Amino acid sequence: MADEKVVRFGILGCAAIARKLVRAIAISPTSSVYAVASRSIDKAKAFASANNLPPEVKTYGSYEQLLDDPCVDALYIPLPTSLHLEWALKAAYKRKHILLEKPPALCVEDLDIIIEACNNNGVQFMDGTMWMHHPRTPQMKAFLQNPDLFGDLKLVQSTFSYAGSDKFFEEDIRVKPDLDALGALGDVGWYCIRAILWANDYEMPQSVIAHPRPVLNEGGVVTCCGATFSWQDGRVATFNCSFHSPMTMDLSFLGSKGNMRLHDFVIPYEENTASFFSSANTGKHKEISSGWGPRSSEHIVTTKFPQETMMVQEFGKLVKGIQDSGGKPDSLWPSISRKTQILLNAVNESIQEGLVSVTL
Amino acid sequence: MADEKVVRFGILGCAAIARKLVRAIAISPTSSVYAVASRSIDKAKAFASANNLPPEVKTYGSYEQLLDDPCVDALYIPLPTSLHLEWALKAAYKRKHILLEKPPALCVEDLDIIIEACNNNGVQFMDGTMWMHHPRTPQMKAFLQNPDLFGDLKLVQSTFSYAGSDKFFEEDIRVKPDLDALGALGDVGWYCIRAILWANDYEMPQSVIAHPRPVLNEGGVVTCCGATFSWQDGRVATFNCSFHSPMTMDLSFLGSKGNMRLHDFVIPYEENTASFFSSANTGKHKEISSGWGPRSSEHIVTTKFPQETMMVQEFGKLVKGIQDSGGKPDSLWPSISRKTQILLNAVNESIQEGLVSVTL
Repeated sequence: MADEKVVRFGILGCAAIARKLVRAIAISPTSSVYAVASRSIDKAKAFASANNLPPEVKTYGSYEQLLDDPCVDALYIPLPTSLHLEWALKAAYKRKHILLEKPPALCVEDLDIIIEACNNNGVQFMDGTMWMHHPRTPQMKAFLQNPDLFGDLKLVQSTFSYAGSDKFFEEDIRVKPDLDALGALGDVGWYCIRAILWANDYEMPQSVIAHPRPVLNEGGVVTCCGATFSWQDGRVATFNCSFHSPMTMDLSFLGSKGNMRLHDFVIPYEENTASFFSSANTGKHKEISSGWGPRSSEHIVTTKFPQETMMVQEFGKLVKGIQDSGGKPDSLWPSISRKTQILLNAVNESIQEGLVSVTL
Repeated sequence: MADEKVVRFGILGCAAIARKLVRAIAISPTSSVYAVASRSIDKAKAFASANNLPPEVKTYGSYEQLLDDPCVDALYIPLPTSLHLEWALKAAYKRKHILLEKPPALCVEDLDIIIEACNNNGVQFMDGTMWMHHPRTPQMKAFLQNPDLFGDLKLVQSTFSYAGSDKFFEEDIRVKPDLDALGALGDVGWYCIRAILWANDYEMPQSVIAHPRPVLNEGGVVTCCGATFSWQDGRVATFNCSFHSPMTMDLSFLGSKGNMRLHDFVIPYEENTASFFSSANTGKHKEISSGWGPRSSEHIVTTKFPQETMMVQEFGKLVKGIQDSGGKPDSLWPSISRKTQILLNAVNESIQEGLVSVTL
């Protein structure tokens, strides 16, 4: 377990999402779960037991104890967003590499402090946006970048929703202003915004405007909203995110020559295969007398490891690069996190300021 | 051909779309093509010949001659939008029932004059929105109205685009300010707006705001734009229409319990079968450990006649009702046209006024 070839992870907090990452880390040949911490030792032990962690995995009854363990290389932090700044900073100062659940911060100012602390302490920062690491993602990108098949990007549309239960709306951290003040925007809108940025090669839009009638709970937390982004050259993107509609994860792209779509962009329907649909060069305008085509073609991408393991491996590769050759932390992933955070907060600002257009 | 049991159509103008309607009218057992008019007799004869119309079909070298033919019951008018007011009024005064291509008018004031003239002269008015008449449409509606499977409507999104050729952008009537001043909004946006209204049981939104960066040609005609509609109870709809992207006809709906989508809503991929995809009750929120489902189910709807023939039959039924029992013109279809036109013009107003929110 203390194999020096692998990145030894500490899990800071026992959120439900941590189950998934514990499995992902265990599956990955380049990482291991070294320790688990909760605010009580009983909760940490219960989590270790519920996830069938081997007995040599350490359990801690406080986050500080985990940070003080010199054998922990990296932390996975699935804490509520309002705790990210404190614990990411403490982790960076203890020279732990950080895989931080999204949204990484409540505002870009906080995120900048976290990223700076990571850089100053020579540790890697990455947020937990898993779909970025699925092998489907670069294949989709190749289609979007194909000048003959897709052409110039014109429009991106994304929707991510799930239906909260009554209990969810009463108790879940995602609807509590003191825990996850960004609500649905931070939890599900994050993915839509990331997808829009990704499709636009991370070029920031010129303006952001929230759609009318966002839904906020009595604590002022957004539970449903949408927005439109626009770029100077005419590109447009819209997204919708919600806790009030059933599981939907749609992403579609319209180019000058082709289009592409998928319906499971955040979490693929299946773990080892995933697909997307594209159509290209359907011809110039003509009156359609009866029927048309071709329909979109399905592209199937297989993966040996689930996307969360691919993420852990990418993160581990960067960590090993720093550990083994004294390299600097990679700046790509932090810069992508930062842009996503800026847009997230711009949408929130537009909502809070009465649907004004926010210029970036 | 002069069978009194059928509605005898005159075709006013030989636009490309008229080919489709001539076939639709011929297929329908309750209608026949009685006469064709163009501004020159040669064009009318060439159209009759190119469409294999039987020799008894009359050809006229002026629109007035067609209007003066007492055997013509109804007109199909595929003229450029700027000519609709003049020729629909002349037709109504000659007591011809009117099937008018969309958009029916340049503004709702003109449309109101047309509809009033039809009512005053006891003739039926209907616009040429074919997909409304496909048997798939009421089946989709049944899903949207199912409180257990779909629940309350939250979001509608629609995209209709096709790619204009260089010749299209130079010559086509759809990009000429003096012929079809509403451009892409009138030609393809019309369908998106209609679909949004249809899904909302024709309840008008409270506000309309165009998306940033609409594309206008040098004549000021919109060739690409989008907009967001919102209702007081939180429902939202967005659409995008364009002459700059390949053939795309997407329509999706998000409810409180289910979702639905299709990718050929304006013109089905095939003439005799069409499908839509829905998913319902995917369960309340839970952390997804790996994969999810069920995927959407496909619902296949078959039709004996293509949707344009279904439209001709619906129109013919209303015409026969007036002819046979002296009934009044039906007001449903004109009222739906009118609401679509109001929204179309509200989007145009938002664009022309610098992306203001238009309150209805």
